[in-house]
Order: sequence, then structure tokens, then C-alpha cells
Amino acid sequence: MVKKLNEEKLTLGICYYPEHWPEDMWEDDYRRMKELGITYVRMGEFAWSIFEPEEGKFSFDLFDRAVAKAGEFGLKVIMGTPTATPPTWLTKKYPDSLNVTQDGIPYQHGARRHYNYNSENYRRLSSIIVKKMAEHYHDHPDVVGWQIDNELNCETDVFYSEADHDAFREWAKKKYHTLENLNAAWGAVFWNQTYTSWDQVYLTRKTVPNSPNPHHALDEKRFFSDSAISYAKLQADILREYAPKQWVTTNGMFGHLDNHKLTDDLLDFYAYDSYPNFGRIIEDHSVKPLRDRKWSWNLSVVRSISPNFAIFEQQSGPGGWVTRIEQPSPKPGQLRLWTYQSIAHGADMIMYFRWRTATKGTEIYWHGINDYHNQPNRRVKEVEAVSQELHKLGQIAGSSYQAEIAYVTNYDNEWDAEFDKWVGPYEAKSKDAWFKALQYNHVPVDAFHLNAETSLEDLKSYKVLVYPHAAIITKEQAELFNSYVKQGGKMIFGCRSGYKDETGQPYMKAFPGYLADLVGVNVEEFTREAPFEETPGVKFKNLQEVEANDFNEVLQLKEDVEVLGTFTNAHFEGKPALVKRNYGQGSSYYFGGVFNLDLASLLIDEFELNDYQDLFDLPEQVELSIRHKEGTDYVFLLNYSEVPQEVTFKKEFTDLITGRPVTNKHTLKPFDVIVLA
Amino acid sequence: MVKKLNEEKLTLGICYYPEHWPEDMWEDDYRRMKELGITYVRMGEFAWSIFEPEEGKFSFDLFDRAVAKAGEFGLKVIMGTPTATPPTWLTKKYPDSLNVTQDGIPYQHGARRHYNYNSENYRRLSSIIVKKMAEHYHDHPDVVGWQIDNELNCETDVFYSEADHDAFREWAKKKYHTLENLNAAWGAVFWNQTYTSWDQVYLTRKTVPNSPNPHHALDEKRFFSDSAISYAKLQADILREYAPKQWVTTNGMFGHLDNHKLTDDLLDFYAYDSYPNFGRIIEDHSVKPLRDRKWSWNLSVVRSISPNFAIFEQQSGPGGWVTRIEQPSPKPGQLRLWTYQSIAHGADMIMYFRWRTATKGTEIYWHGINDYHNQPNRRVKEVEAVSQELHKLGQIAGSSYQAEIAYVTNYDNEWDAEFDKWVGPYEAKSKDAWFKALQYNHVPVDAFHLNAETSLEDLKSYKVLVYPHAAIITKEQAELFNSYVKQGGKMIFGCRSGYKDETGQPYMKAFPGYLADLVGVNVEEFTREAPFEETPGVKFKNLQEVEANDFNEVLQLKEDVEVLGTFTNAHFEGKPALVKRNYGQGSSYYFGGVFNLDLASLLIDEFELNDYQDLFDLPEQVELSIRHKEGTDYVFLLNYSEVPQEVTFKKEFTDLITGRPVTNKHTLKPFDVIVLA
Amino acid sequence: MVKKLNEEKLTLGICYYPEHWPEDMWEDDYRRMKELGITYVRMGEFAWSIFEPEEGKFSFDLFDRAVAKAGEFGLKVIMGTPTATPPTWLTKKYPDSLNVTQDGIPYQHGARRHYNYNSENYRRLSSIIVKKMAEHYHDHPDVVGWQIDNELNCETDVFYSEADHDAFREWAKKKYHTLENLNAAWGAVFWNQTYTSWDQVYLTRKTVPNSPNPHHALDEKRFFSDSAISYAKLQADILREYAPKQWVTTNGMFGHLDNHKLTDDLLDFYAYDSYPNFGRIIEDHSVKPLRDRKWSWNLSVVRSISPNFAIFEQQSGPGGWVTRIEQPSPKPGQLRLWTYQSIAHGADMIMYFRWRTATKGTEIYWHGINDYHNQPNRRVKEVEAVSQELHKLGQIAGSSYQAEIAYVTNYDNEWDAEFDKWVGPYEAKSKDAWFKALQYNHVPVDAFHLNAETSLEDLKSYKVLVYPHAAIITKEQAELFNSYVKQGGKMIFGCRSGYKDETGQPYMKAFPGYLADLVGVNVEEFTREAPFEETPGVKFKNLQEVEANDFNEVLQLKEDVEVLGTFTNAHFEGKPALVKRNYGQGSSYYFGGVFNLDLASLLIDEFELNDYQDLFDLPEQVELSIRHKEGTDYVFLLNYSEVPQEVTFKKEFTDLITGRPVTNKHTLKPFDVIVLA
Repeated sequence: MVKKLNEEKLTLGICYYPEHWPEDMWEDDYRRMKELGITYVRMGEFAWSIFEPEEGKFSFDLFDRAVAKAGEFGLKVIMGTPTATPPTWLTKKYPDSLNVTQDGIPYQHGARRHYNYNSENYRRLSSIIVKKMAEHYHDHPDVVGWQIDNELNCETDVFYSEADHDAFREWAKKKYHTLENLNAAWGAVFWNQTYTSWDQVYLTRKTVPNSPNPHHALDEKRFFSDSAISYAKLQADILREYAPKQWVTTNGMFGHLDNHKLTDDLLDFYAYDSYPNFGRIIEDHSVKPLRDRKWSWNLSVVRSISPNFAIFEQQSGPGGWVTRIEQPSPKPGQLRLWTYQSIAHGADMIMYFRWRTATKGTEIYWHGINDYHNQPNRRVKEVEAVSQELHKLGQIAGSSYQAEIAYVTNYDNEWDAEFDKWVGPYEAKSKDAWFKALQYNHVPVDAFHLNAETSLEDLKSYKVLVYPHAAIITKEQAELFNSYVKQGGKMIFGCRSGYKDETGQPYMKAFPGYLADLVGVNVEEFTREAPFEETPGVKFKNLQEVEANDFNEVLQLKEDVEVLGTFTNAHFEGKPALVKRNYGQGSSYYFGGVFNLDLASLLIDEFELNDYQDLFDLPEQVELSIRHKEGTDYVFLLNYSEVPQEVTFKKEFTDLITGRPVTNKHTLKPFDVIVLA
Repeated sequence: MVKKLNEEKLTLGICYYPEHWPEDMWEDDYRRMKELGITYVRMGEFAWSIFEPEEGKFSFDLFDRAVAKAGEFGLKVIMGTPTATPPTWLTKKYPDSLNVTQDGIPYQHGARRHYNYNSENYRRLSSIIVKKMAEHYHDHPDVVGWQIDNELNCETDVFYSEADHDAFREWAKKKYHTLENLNAAWGAVFWNQTYTSWDQVYLTRKTVPNSPNPHHALDEKRFFSDSAISYAKLQADILREYAPKQWVTTNGMFGHLDNHKLTDDLLDFYAYDSYPNFGRIIEDHSVKPLRDRKWSWNLSVVRSISPNFAIFEQQSGPGGWVTRIEQPSPKPGQLRLWTYQSIAHGADMIMYFRWRTATKGTEIYWHGINDYHNQPNRRVKEVEAVSQELHKLGQIAGSSYQAEIAYVTNYDNEWDAEFDKWVGPYEAKSKDAWFKALQYNHVPVDAFHLNAETSLEDLKSYKVLVYPHAAIITKEQAELFNSYVKQGGKMIFGCRSGYKDETGQPYMKAFPGYLADLVGVNVEEFTREAPFEETPGVKFKNLQEVEANDFNEVLQLKEDVEVLGTFTNAHFEGKPALVKRNYGQGSSYYFGGVFNLDLASLLIDEFELNDYQDLFDLPEQVELSIRHKEGTDYVFLLNYSEVPQEVTFKKEFTDLITGRPVTNKHTLKPFDVIVLA
Repeated sequence: MVKKLNEEKLTLGICYYPEHWPEDMWEDDYRRMKELGITYVRMGEFAWSIFEPEEGKFSFDLFDRAVAKAGEFGLKVIMGTPTATPPTWLTKKYPDSLNVTQDGIPYQHGARRHYNYNSENYRRLSSIIVKKMAEHYHDHPDVVGWQIDNELNCETDVFYSEADHDAFREWAKKKYHTLENLNAAWGAVFWNQTYTSWDQVYLTRKTVPNSPNPHHALDEKRFFSDSAISYAKLQADILREYAPKQWVTTNGMFGHLDNHKLTDDLLDFYAYDSYPNFGRIIEDHSVKPLRDRKWSWNLSVVRSISPNFAIFEQQSGPGGWVTRIEQPSPKPGQLRLWTYQSIAHGADMIMYFRWRTATKGTEIYWHGINDYHNQPNRRVKEVEAVSQELHKLGQIAGSSYQAEIAYVTNYDNEWDAEFDKWVGPYEAKSKDAWFKALQYNHVPVDAFHLNAETSLEDLKSYKVLVYPHAAIITKEQAELFNSYVKQGGKMIFGCRSGYKDETGQPYMKAFPGYLADLVGVNVEEFTREAPFEETPGVKFKNLQEVEANDFNEVLQLKEDVEVLGTFTNAHFEGKPALVKRNYGQGSSYYFGGVFNLDLASLLIDEFELNDYQDLFDLPEQVELSIRHKEGTDYVFLLNYSEVPQEVTFKKEFTDLITGRPVTNKHTLKPFDVIVLA
């Protein structure tokens, strides 16, 4: 069942913390929200001490008044369960509820997310507060839905409390049944790690070389994900039971968490917190860094979870904590641009974070749309303008993003590669290269999530699948890919593909393992790029030469394999580097290396995808997105540059915001957006 | 009451550790000190185990002989209380006396300053040893004064033992009386940090994102300072009671310690340890780094505590520990230069660290004036030369440093900014820029310490006050500044001024808060400099253009505000950046940015301060200092360069060292100093 | 007694882990080993859980079958004692057996070497397993020798468990007898560290400035070495008793371990694990980095322990862990080159690590000669070629490396300098410079290990000794050097020589302490190089000028001292920097600085050593090694470059591999080796 947001039109919301502000300010705040065209208000998610000031003593007065007042202005409330920040009385009384470092040092009160998911006390007390809140608000007419906790696995995605070690032991028993199975899966015979009693089993702990058993570490990440989901399920089950008429979701996208499973199993739709301004401060030494435009990739992943989704926190100002995250202010137009970036990728509900900048605590520099002083400012005006525009674009809600190509993602490989210096860095580079090449060539792309339920039909939604460095590929997955290509699909792989099984152990097979038949190669030899030597190259179709950076696999070919590129500038000069094999009605590609922007661009041409050159001439700085509903393509053109960009239309479109026709040359102002049909 | 050293003439001293050396060397050492013109010998400060080899068993024999022998040569002894290094028997028996990391790991025996100030056992045992020493030496004719402990808060200025957590809880109770007050001051409603019982209150502890509540953290620093002062008071009270005829001080200037309050409440005068050679190894990528000349700023701060002061440790050789601090040797002349640097800024007593380089332990590379081998060397000869010169300059003792401009310092802002990446780095840059600009323009400057007792009269000692990035400005302080300017003062502020209250929480006011009336601006919008973009500029008086680095505030002007500079190269091009407002008989200046050397230099011209161009033409490499006493200006010119510097005198002076007149051109040799009247 | 390997001919071996592989693969594996010409198979060293699956329950079945099967193919087994990786049941039941960080955090199960050497339980259980294995295999015809543990002190060379603290206390009692002696040796009077009871004595612990007492720290390293040797002795004694007919050794060369004493006291010969591929990934910003050729120095040190030695792990493929150590593949020829590098330096037995790349655990990227897939590959073929060549070179076994010059090493200085930023970095730079200069000038060099047993005769084996920055030089050592030079030796020292005694405390003497007579200088003054200033120079013999980087000592000369170089570009311009003194029949040299490649090259010319220019003209990229036996010089020329290198022979040699004569010009292919007689 596809979990998607079902809004009738594009709507706006706001994150609001009534408990932070004098009660006599609420009315004015709500009135101004209403005037701005805000529909939703999220609240409650950090207020456990308000709801339960002492253990077992509950108080809903403050939020009852806050919800009622919101209702007076026609605002709909999304209520957060407050478990991201346990009360001080709780962690003091139940220290087993704290998360702990791998070295055994507990995290304490003072920030957030210092609890662990497996403490019995914490689970019990969480159940109680969620049940009390659900009982209290389940039929409140102004409360429309629930956010479980806040940003699960944010701040940290590793957990080493005693409760976690114990739960992991049980998890392992359930998964492996016998120690023989566990020892085999973890390759325990290596370095004499064989377990002879279940009480010897722990999460990874401090080792002398700071390098745990990698198969153990992979399972640990699966466990962290299952723990988080189990904890969310505890809350979701209560909400479903006690508040069956209100929807349930959670927000954020963080590490060691299978958000697809979480959403499929527990939620009505998925909500993301989008902060593209991070893109302006993150070190990025790659060619042509995408900066805030990189968030379009994140939004593509979100879309793979929930085709239509909500943004629960849309960045609306300069961001930062007192001690770190030093972001500049959005420039005039950027707040609007980022809002449309979310919409262009499938968001139908956008909630700005936050109404007014906090005057207390660690986040006094995470600015809301209002400043501390509450005077009108440029950001509020920009939200107002967006709000008015959305009235004209409401019908876009429910439409679907259009893409012919997808980049494949998979949690097993993501978690295995995180730890593996022989895959992880290559995957990061290739993803960057492919996403950039597709963006700059105006070829819309989806993220495609591969899991145990993936069917051939799912794959067949796309003309081309890119799956660069999936170390773990099972026999079943390889057969699925074979079928996909046989039936006309195109699929491309890079080096380090297919050499591991699901435990993360290499097969006793020549690379690329079970893919060998599909791609028609065996890897004859391979090498990492030596750090103080010249980088080899690839000669593509005897024409262009591009770098073969980071890793090289020399390919031995089976029959009927076409060589598209050969190595240069290496002792394996002239040997095959990049090949194509026609396979059934489709074709496979294998590159014995890490993709870079040049090579990915050359390959995109190969695939003959729609780059919409019949409709527009677009400069690189402009992103193209298309959402489709009921026979209409909604075209978004977004200018991420602070320089005006000239666009050429090769047919006449209607500018949906102005209602006017556009044709021929059109100039997008800095950070400007145009939505066409 | 002003706490200043009252020496009748400029005097020299030496740090000596008799317990380190064979007793038969003492006589020769003292004789040579006497020959060098040394007056004072400091000893005893790391010798607790000598004085109390077992708990409750005391022995003064060794130091009695060491003091008596010093007395034979007419040397006066300054006795250190030995609490900076607890005996091994003490920390073994009373582990609660140890300081502990925030993570809970105790520091142990092996170096120094591993104790905490709040352990009851440590306070009790400290009281006993200090009392015993005071009883023993209070009427010794050769012991003239006491140094409490050694370098309080050196090595570390944070303390997390159980005793510290407990003492902090009591400190907070005393400050806030109720948890309601505490919760309000710490903004505890944010992230659900509300305290409901006093036993939940601790110093900051490990948090997941390694970011404690900033208001809590600010109070923690106030507590650390109060703890250190309380511990020093424990000793000072005993010394005052048992040794009333001897003076009392302590040495050093380290973090999280209100040295002004410490001195005002407890000491006779303040003593500083001056190591300018650090300036030759510290990374400094600023424009025209000051290197060792930076110590002139440190000495200015010392002067703000004690207008005439002592140097208890004046660097006299290459410095360094075995494991770190890798300093080169002073070049010929630098030891003398640094001595005069101290004197030029108000030091009337200079004690060299140390007589002879240690042959044991961590500091075998902190060289004294003598080498291990005790043979005559260049450094001893340089001290001898200085000593002879000082005979001719003795009358300078007691004279006062002259400055028309002061740079304002304040502990609340210093401690708040330490933690705040949105203020602290700007304050550091602006301080550097202003100090350099004043040095290079030969405008002497004071540090002005702003605290609760500061009066309008205090402010009126200066024509100009520079207070660049004081985030915390109270209503009362703003009113004081208003009065100062109304009565003719000039005062200049930079961005990030006045937006926080004393708890470190932003006001719900437009920036710059209570300063708005004085400076006549509201901040319309602001931004940090984006790291991968071009730096904006400021056009000053439509003439020069300088960089507007790091942070930009766009200013909205009230009436009667003169625009001195506007922004360039930004989306807010042309908007006001730097303004002046005539206010009563004085004027205020506000710059919506961080000061750099270029801008500070332009502004100094604005202020029309005495730069002594009627008296000299001085090259940038030469520092000018003037001390005044009884109608005479004592002029110090110090050449920090290893290149000769030519000075032009526009009237005739007397070189006080040679006794000869100087006029017209004069060449200062590398590292040379001239003292004129 | 010289401990050397006594092989009759050059032999090959392989590291094999039968427990990792299906038993039905063994036969094929052994057959292929046999076909490759392999003689030895090492096994067992990480298999404790196989031998003792439960405490006190032993099982030899698996390895009995593995040994028997090896025997069927004529392979000889080297058995490893399995103590490098304790079983999980052991560390769970006896947590006192774990090693612990200095901060008190125990290392846990999951990697290797997480035990400590002093745990009574671990020593007891180690004794039992070693005894059981020795009893079982002592008369097995196919088991020829034992490897104790695996790579002692690899992963970490520091140990802070409670058992280590206790053992250190006993070690100190035994060494010092009284606390007075201990306090004197550790300079405890400094910073009041005096011990008054033995229970106050610990290994170094966490100090506030993270800087322990350096004399204490030096003793700690001596203790770590003694602990490791004591643990190895525990095993060696059992093996000698229960398996007297089999030889005993151990492998590796790691920190804080006196491998010379270990070998002399316990072993039959020394075995090294050689991984030159590290040289291709280690950051090396020195002039002309040696990369993999640097391993020739390591092999020289190994040779100083055991003139003929074994390589128990010779790198045979790309190397790396999952999380770190990211090595490229050896290029065609490099595996062969590195094998000959070992042989050229004295190895007579070469065991490749490992037969087949592990498919499990942390080392899945430490490739063996076979890949996971077990198909023939380039590396297997290269081993086969080497094997065939060695048949023609067998007689080289037992021959001796020839060198006229030696670089002196000494554990006291190595361990003291490790911690000392005023010596350690200089020693590292000078060693690099000298080794490079000797390599590039084709002057073979030995490492000469100086210890308490070193005799004048030992020294006299060399024409020249280079001992650049030995801070610790005792009176006895100085007298030994005097005798050596008097009898015709040449000896050269650099700055920072001779100023410390055996405790690491500076003498109360002018530098260079007891060396002053031999070298005829006192150091007048010295300085570290100041980081932001120009580097001084040395003018050598009034001709070339080279840099005088890092540290400068200005020399005062005694009589009859010849100045070879004077300083430039410093305030001590023109003063002596480098001197020579004829002393008896020999001569001494002293340089008041750190050697660089230019200076070392100039000095080598001074020494008039045999650089074999009468025999060859060799390019820099080619290493020359000569082994001698029974009147024959075996000459190795090794090309470390991937570019062909032209060699000129000035007499006719025989290429021992082809059996053909070579003369005049000869081109060494990339990574090629030629062995001549």
C-alpha cells in the first residue's frame, strides 16, 4: 500500500511553541498566521514536562487553551508526542532510560534525544504519556493528526545503553536461533571471535584498533533501525487505538533507520524536515558543487518513501545553534525558492520552521519567519507572497513527479558501505556525479528503493536504473535485474558491485558475483588509486578521455560484450574499463570504476532519455521538475543562482502564477521560480 | 580602593626552587643573584611535600635554611602557598579532592592543578598548610609577602568533580532561591529542560550533540570564577589573620576567573606571568601579526586590574614542555625588550622565571636565565645589563600609563561569547583589529573593565570607548553609556551589540536592544558571511572601500543619524553600514559589522586622539608607551623588529639610560628600547 | 650468541587458516602450494577457540587433520600459539585479562590483542593452552617450529589494566628498592610528585595537561617491554620444556618492545612481517620520499637482531582493513621486488601472507596471493616465478649482508625521544636523511643496536658510525666511543646529543655532556627554528650552502677542531655549525643541527666509503645490496621505479637467475631485480 499524503490542495503550516511565549501573545500570533494563509499549526513535541510535570500527574490546560485559541482562527493542529526530550524528573529517577556512548558514558539532560529506545522504563512512561494525550485529544475537532516523537535518530544514530545490549542479544536470538548461525553470519572464526554462550553477545564495543567485526556492525545497524521502528510502533499502536480518526506520521530522515519500512508499517504518510541552507556551509570540494540544490536529491529519496509528502520543517531563516551550524541568512527569494523546491519534488503540505525565533536555549539562532522582536520582516513578506501564489497552484496537490530514470538505493548497502572504506566513498562520489549530471542535463530522476518486496513491475516503471556500487547483491536480486533487462530495461553498475552476500561477507566468486551473467564480465584484477601517483583515464568510444579516479577494475569479457571504454595511463592500458551488453530486449552496462561528472554526462546521452529539449533550452543553473495529474504536466523551473538566467520556450506555456502565456525567451530573476502548464 | 603595587623603585626578582638543588649550591646562587642586582626571590609554591611530608607532620627546616641563606645576601623572600600541587599522599587518601572531566574521568597525580576548589577535604587540608606556613613565617624579617597558590585556573578552567556539582547546586539555590527563577533564567522551557527538584541540578554534563544549554553554561562559568575566588579567599583570610604585616597576592591570568573581583576583594596588588615568546609560535593568520607585541594587550588588561603591578614570572629563555609548547630561544635583546614591555605598561617589579633551568620533570625546556650547566651565558648578561639600567630609571616606579582611549572588557560577555559562535569569533577579530590599529598609529590604549560598580566618573576618564560586540547590554548599562556620551564622550559599537540580557537570552527587541536610542539605529536584517561567496564591502565616506567581513547588519536609521559607510557587493548594496550620531555633547558610532585593521585605522582618525605626531615620527614596528608621574612623562619606545628602525624626534628628549640628549633622527637597533623624559 | 635462522637454502612458505575454509578445499590448496614450491605452512595462531572451545576442554582434531593433510604434500608446519585472540568465553569470565585505556576504559572482544600481559588469569590460561599444544605437537614429524602469539604489541603498545598497574609497582620496587631512589630517578621533587608509600605508585595516568612526568613515562616504556618479554618467556619456557626439538620464534616488530633482548633471551631467530605497500599510502612530505624502499631500513633493523632472519608475513596483495589502511594493488613485479628486498637484506625464509584472501571479518581486504574466487591470478603467477628463480639462488642462504657504515639505534633513546618534542622529531628527520643519502649513493648500511652488552669489538665492525641525536649518553658509552675513534673509527653526532642521563634527566653539564672531549665542542647557545621566520643555513667548507633546519646549536671549539661548516642567515652568522676532530687514529664529527639529505650526502663523501663505483654506475632508483658467503659476493640490484633503469657494469658478472654473463649496459625493467655473482 502506497503511503502518501492526501491533501486536496497545496497547504502551508507553521511550527509553534505556545509554551515558550506569554499567553497574551498567542492571539496576535494566530491572527497573523491566519492572515498569512497558514492552515496547520504543529505543537507539543518538546513539552512533556508541561503535560506531565510530575510522574503520573497530568496537565492539559496550557495546550487545551493553545489548541482552542488556534481553533478560533480556523487553524488545524498537528500534535507532537513529546518523547524526544524526557523530563528531568524522568532521567533522574530512571537513569536506565539514557543513551550511552560506546565507551559507556551516559548522555545526560541538557539537550535532546538522550534517551534509548529499549529501556523498559522509558517505553512504559512513553506509552503512558502518549495514551493520555491520545485519550485527551482524539476527538478534538481542531486536532487533525499526530507527529510521533521528533526526528528519530537525529543527533545520534547509535545506542549503547545496557538496555540496548540486552535487546540486541534478544534480536540476535530471534534472527539466528542458534549460535552456530550467528557465528557463521558474523564470520566469527576470523580472529577467534566464536560465541559459545548467548551472554557473550553484545553490540559492538571498544576494540583496540577501533574496528569492530564488520558483519556484526552491519547487523547492529539493522538492530538500531528495528529499535527505532519498534519504539515508533509502540506509540503508533496507541495512537491508532485511541485516536483512530486522526492521521499519524513522524518527521525527519536520519541514519540507521529504514524510513520506508517505518512508513509502510506505521504511518499514513512521511514528513521531511528540509533545511537547504546547510548546503551553503557544507564543505564541498567536488566539481560544480550543488549547494542548496543538493536538497533536490534528498527530496527524491523522500518521494521514494511517500510519493506525495509533507514538509514538517521548511527552513525559513538563518540557521544555527549557539555552538555550531553557522548558516547565513537566506537571500531575498531563497525562502520562496526552497518552498517550491519541496513542492516541485512532491510536497503538498509545507510547514515552516518556526513561527518566531526562540529567545532561549541552544537554538536561539535557528530563526523562524519572525524575528525575536516580532516586527514585520522580509521573511514574513516572502511567506505571504508564496501563500498567495499557492492559491493559484492548489490543483497541483496529488500530482506525481515524472522520471524515466532512477538511482537505486538500498539500506543493506548503505549501512554496510558506511563502515567500508572500499565501497562507501565510491558510492558517495558516484551518487553525486550522477545526480549532478542528470540535473545539469535536465533529466528528472527518482530514487528507487530496493528491498525484499521489490517486484519486477516496480522496476519496470523506469527505462533506466543506475546502481553504481552495490557490494551486496543476492542471487534473487541478480535474477530480478536479469528479468528487468530482458524485458527491455537498461541498467548500469560500477566497480565493487555484487561481491558480498547479505551478511557483508565476500562470495567465493569472481567479481561482480551473481551479476556476471547480466553484465558479461569478470574482474581480472583491480586496484585502488595509489595516492601519490597519476590518475588513470578511460577513453570513451575512442573519442573523449575522462579520469578513471579512485578505483579501477580490469574487465575480462564474455561473448557479445561491447567495449565502450578502455583504460589509459596505467599498466593495464588498453584493457576494457566500460562495457555494454545487449541482454534480451534491454541492455546492461558495467563500468570498472567510480563515476565522475564527465562520464555520467556521456552515459546519459547513451540512454536516450527525455531531456525536454523539444520544450525548452535551459541553462545549467535551472532545475526542471515535472509533476503530472490528470493529463496535465505541471512544469517547475527553479533558478538556484543569484544571477538572472535566460530560458527559451519552444512552445507556449501558461505561467500558472500570473496566468499569462509565456513563450520564446524568458528571464528568471535570481532565485526565481516559474510554474507552467 | 585601587589595588596597586607600591614599590619605591623598579625592582627585579627571581623564581628559585631551593628544594631542587643541592644545598651546597644555594650560597653561590644567591651571591650571583645579589651581584645581578636582584631584590626578590620567590619560592615554596610547589613544595607541599617538603612542608608536610605526611598528613599532619610539618617540617620547615629546608625552607628555613633557604630563607636564612637568602637573607644573608640581602634578598627578600616571597613565599608561595603550595596548593597548586597536592602531595601524593593527599590525593591517594582523599580522591574527592581531584578535579574530574565532564565525562567523569578523574585527573590524577603526575602534573599539576589536578585538584578541585570545592572538595571539603582539600579546603580543610589547604587551610591547615597555609595556616602553618603563615604562623611560621609571619614575622620572618626576610619574608615580605605571599603568593596564594600558583596560576589559579591554569591548565584547566573547568571543574566537574562531585564536590563541584554539589557546590554549584548550592550556588544556584543562593542565586535563584526558587526553581521557577532558575528555570526562567536558563530558559528551561526550551527542549523540556524544566527542573522540578533541586537534586536535578548539576553543572553541564555530556549531551548528545555536545552542546549544553547556553544560559546554564554561562552561569557555570560564573560559578567556576566564584569557586576559585572562594578558594583563594580561604587562603587570603588565613594569611591576613596570621601574617598581617606581609602583603598577599597571586599570579597569572587565566580563564573563567574574575581577576578584578579577586584582586579587589582579596589582594594587595595583582601579579602577572608574562611569556611573550608564545607570540612567536602561535598560529596567527591575521594581517600583520603582532607576535610578541600582542603581550602589550595582555599587560593592558593587567593594568586595568592593578594600575601598577608585578610580573611574577617574566620569560627569560626558550620555553616549552617535553611534550609541547615548542618555543625558540629569545634573540639577543628580546629578553631585555620584554622586560621593558612589562615596565612600559605599568610593571614596577619584574621577577624572572627562573634562576636555572629545571633538570627534572615536564619543564626541563622552560629555560631559566641560567642553563643546566650554570656557566655564564648571554641571558644572564642581558639581565645584568637591564639591572644596571633600572638603577637609572628607578623613579619611574609608581607612575601611571597614559591613554585617552579604552577598549571595554566585561566578564559576562567574555564568558557568554566563548561559547557563542555568533559573537565570540567577531569579538576576537575586532579586538585584534583595534589593538593593532592603535599600536601602529601610536595611540596608547587602556583596557576598561566594565562591571556592576562601574561609575560614570570611571567612563569619563577616557575620550573614547570602544565596545565592539557586547551581546549582553543591560538597560542600566545603556543608560550609563547614554550619560557618558551626553557629557561629551565618544563611544563605538559593532554588530551583535546589545541583543541579550544578563542570562544570555535575546531580548524581544530589535537589535541593538537598549542601545538603539544612543546609536540611532535598528537592524533591519543581518547575515553571517556565506563561506563560499564573495565578501561584501563598506564604502567609507564615499572614499575608501574596505571589507565587510564575517557579519553584516543592514541599518535602519532614526533621525539625525549620519551615514559614514554603506554596503557594497551584496543584495543590500547601498544600505547603511556605519553611522554616527551626535548625542548631547558627544557622539556615538555603530558599525553593522566586524572591525578589521583598515576600518579601525580610518576610525581612529575620526576620533582625533593624540598620536604624538608633534613629538615623534615613529615607524609601525615601534611601540609607544608613556607613563606619567609628578609632571614628567616617561616615554618608552620599543622596537619589536629584528631590523633597525629609524625614529625622528621633533623636540629634544633625554635618554634616561645614557643621560644624553636625543633629537632629530635616532636609530633603534633590533629589539632595542629607549626610555626618554 | 647470535640468533640467526639456519636454512640450508632460500625457502618459501605461506600463512594458511584451515579453520576458515571448508575441509574439502584443503587438499586442493595444499596441492597447489606444493606445485608453487612452498616449503612451510604457518597455522593456528588465531584459533584458541578451536583448540579449547570451553575452558579446560581441548580439541586437536581439526588441526590434526590439517597438519596431516599438509604432511601428505610434504609441507612443514609452523604452529602459532593462539594467544593473540583470547576466546570470548575467556574475556567474559575473566575481565581482568582485558587491556584498558589510560582513562580506564576496557578494550573488549571484537578485534584482537585486547588482553594484557600481567593478568594472572590470562597468564595461567595461556600457560595451559601452550602446554597442551606443545604436548600434543612436540614430536609431530611435520611440525618444525613455533611462533609465540602473533605480533606482540601490535595494535597498541600501552597497557593500563589494574594488573599492569600492580605489576609496574612491583617492577619499580625491584628496580629501585627504595622510594628515595625512585623519587630521585623520576625527579619527583619537581611539581611535588614525591612518593611516600609504594601504594601511591602507578603507571602514568590522566593528567590535566595530558603530559606525564617524562622520567616516569620512560620507565613505563621499559616496563611495557619487560612485560611483553616476560609474557613471551612464559610461553617460550613451556615450549622449550615440552617441545625441545622444535624451534621457537615470534613475528613482527612493534613499539615499546626490546626485540633484541626478546630474541637473545628466548628465541632461535627473529621473524619479521614485511608490508612495503604501506609505503605507498603513508603521507611523506620529505624530499624524494622512499615509499616502499623505506622498508629496506626496517629490514636493516631486523638484521641487527638476527643477521639471517625469516619473513613470516610477506605482503602479497592489496592490503587494508574494512575501515582503514587503504592500499592499492601491487603492480606487476612489485610482489617479486618486495620478496627480493627481504632476501637482499638477509631473509632466508619468506612466508607470504596469506594463501587466500579472507572472506570474513576485518581483514577481507588484506589480500592473499589467491583471491576469494580461488582462480589463478597474476599474484600466484608471480610467486610461482619467484619460486622457480629461488631454486637457482638457494646457495645465498646463510650469507651475510655487507656494510661499512652503521646507523646507531638504542631503545632508551627511542623511547625517551618518542615523548620529547625537542629530540624525537629531529631523530626521525635525520634517520630519514641519512638512510636516503646512503641509498641514493649506493652505500650499504647496517643498523647498529647499542645496549649494555655492546663491546668495542662490536663497534669496530664498522668504519663509520652515525648517531645523530642520542640525548641519553652515559659516561660509559662516551668512553666506548672514545676508544672506538682512537682506534681508527669515525663517528658523527648531531645536535641534542649527550645531554641526558639514563633517567632522561639533563646533566648539569654543557652540551654535549660526556661527548665533549670526543667531539671537541661545547654548545654556546641553541635555538629551535622559529616557525614564522627564515631558516638559517650552513656553509659547508665555504662551498655549498645547505639549510640548517629545525634546531641550531652554536659551537664553542676546543683545540684542534676543524670547522667544516658555519652558520648563515641568523644572528649567529659565521659561527661554527659543523666540526671535525682528529682523535687518535680516527676522527669525530659534530653537527649542531638536524641532518638533511643535502648535508648527509656531502658527509658521505667525507667518509670515503665504498660506493662500488668501480663495479657499477647505478641510477638513484636502484638499490644495491651485497650478501657475502665463502668468498662470493651476491649482488642484488633492485629497481623500485616503474620506469626502466639503465645500469652500467664495469666488470663482467653472472646473472644468477638466467645463468648468463652481464656486462656493460643493462636495462632493469620496471620493478625488476637482478642477482649477480
